[in-house]
Amino acid sequence: MHFTSVQRFDDGVLEREFTLGEIPGTLWTPESAVPAPLILIGHNGGLHRRESRLVARARHSAAYGYAVAAIDHPGHGDRPRSAVDERARADLRRAMAAGEPVDGIFESFVVPLVENAVPEWRTTLDALLSLPEIGGPVGYSGMAAIGIRLAVTEPRIAAAGFFAGGYVPRAQREEARQVTIPLLFLLQWDDEGNPRQRALDLFDAFGTREKTLHANMGGHAGTPWFEVDDGDRFFARHLK
Amino acid sequence: MHFTSVQRFDDGVLEREFTLGEIPGTLWTPESAVPAPLILIGHNGGLHRRESRLVARARHSAAYGYAVAAIDHPGHGDRPRSAVDERARADLRRAMAAGEPVDGIFESFVVPLVENAVPEWRTTLDALLSLPEIGGPVGYSGMAAIGIRLAVTEPRIAAAGFFAGGYVPRAQREEARQVTIPLLFLLQWDDEGNPRQRALDLFDAFGTREKTLHANMGGHAGTPWFEVDDGDRFFARHLK
Repeated sequence: MHFTSVQRFDDGVLEREFTLGEIPGTLWTPESAVPAPLILIGHNGGLHRRESRLVARARHSAAYGYAVAAIDHPGHGDRPRSAVDERARADLRRAMAAGEPVDGIFESFVVPLVENAVPEWRTTLDALLSLPEIGGPVGYSGMAAIGIRLAVTEPRIAAAGFFAGGYVPRAQREEARQVTIPLLFLLQWDDEGNPRQRALDLFDAFGTREKTLHANMGGHAGTPWFEVDDGDRFFARHLK
Repeated sequence: MHFTSVQRFDDGVLEREFTLGEIPGTLWTPESAVPAPLILIGHNGGLHRRESRLVARARHSAAYGYAVAAIDHPGHGDRPRSAVDERARADLRRAMAAGEPVDGIFESFVVPLVENAVPEWRTTLDALLSLPEIGGPVGYSGMAAIGIRLAVTEPRIAAAGFFAGGYVPRAQREEARQVTIPLLFLLQWDDEGNPRQRALDLFDAFGTREKTLHANMGGHAGTPWFEVDDGDRFFARHLK
């Protein structure tokens, strides 16, 4: 893990860009005398890890006392997009505009995204947990598809916040029953393109008893800011 | 309003029993130099206003900085039950045991409960807001049926937390569209006797855009304690 830039903010939060082999990432850490619990932020949809809302969330949670990390998955952010990725996105836009079914197209690129992202997160986790300023346990916050696979394969993930907006492959909808860690499941009630009933069914399917659903009004990008605070407090209950 | 007893706890919270005409109630107030915003706690199902979980919630919210009040509605707690009430409850137990439809029985006693409780709350509100230690604005927290009617008829109610468990008469399900204040709607995912889909439909129906659903696992009485904290913070955002 090589740190390539560093910035310290007025609230004491340290923001460092890093690379780990081919993986580019960002790490936010609080001013703290003791190792901070770690939250991994998973994102999606071609978003950059430096997307402004993601960065604002990360900095807020770091100021609250967490180490927070985000990486760009293959085909996302700083990383090159393959011709296959580009074609799938073009197919998706065309199908959506035409009002055609999109599940098959989503499967074609979210399935490999999950397959590729989870081993990279585990590698990143190894590196992050070797830093003296970061302690366990670890939380995951973000895209459900990657988070489900991570939660069922990586025993160091102790709690997770999943955002219901975003396609969840059939395989992860099945794996949801194997998720037994505490969950906070965040739903936008009128998320365009993400059927509400499918999200409620996914919440129902998770194997854990310690799961809470938070639903707010509005579309995909309308999650209210207070949910960042709620997420921080959720992790405070479980990352001890 | 006559105070009939007073108790001060170690955390500075003052608990006072009062009567207001026929209405018996309890008021919890924080140690505070400034008038505290007020939360009305509505309860139901024959529960006493001194029921232990209700009292624990009220004291917690008072320690957080709110004035909190609960009253016993006609036929509840300290107040005499009519023969009609008793017969309706017996009918309900019999119908539930036999697996028969219960909506008609619920209508027969929740409709008059709402009709009677709301004017009593408004009278109580007049008296409470005349106390120097209590300031506006006002929140309501508890049973949805009473809360919906109160929210659409009493302009001093600025925000509300509704518990989805408990029968909501057809009239209040219709009135839900007229509720335009910020809402926190609390659902127990496997609430015995309270169909989940009906609760989700009610959440959908509320007229306000500022509504949040919190759903947790378990039955009617299983709401986790952290929802009390979440409620306090919800009111902190809206009772300014």
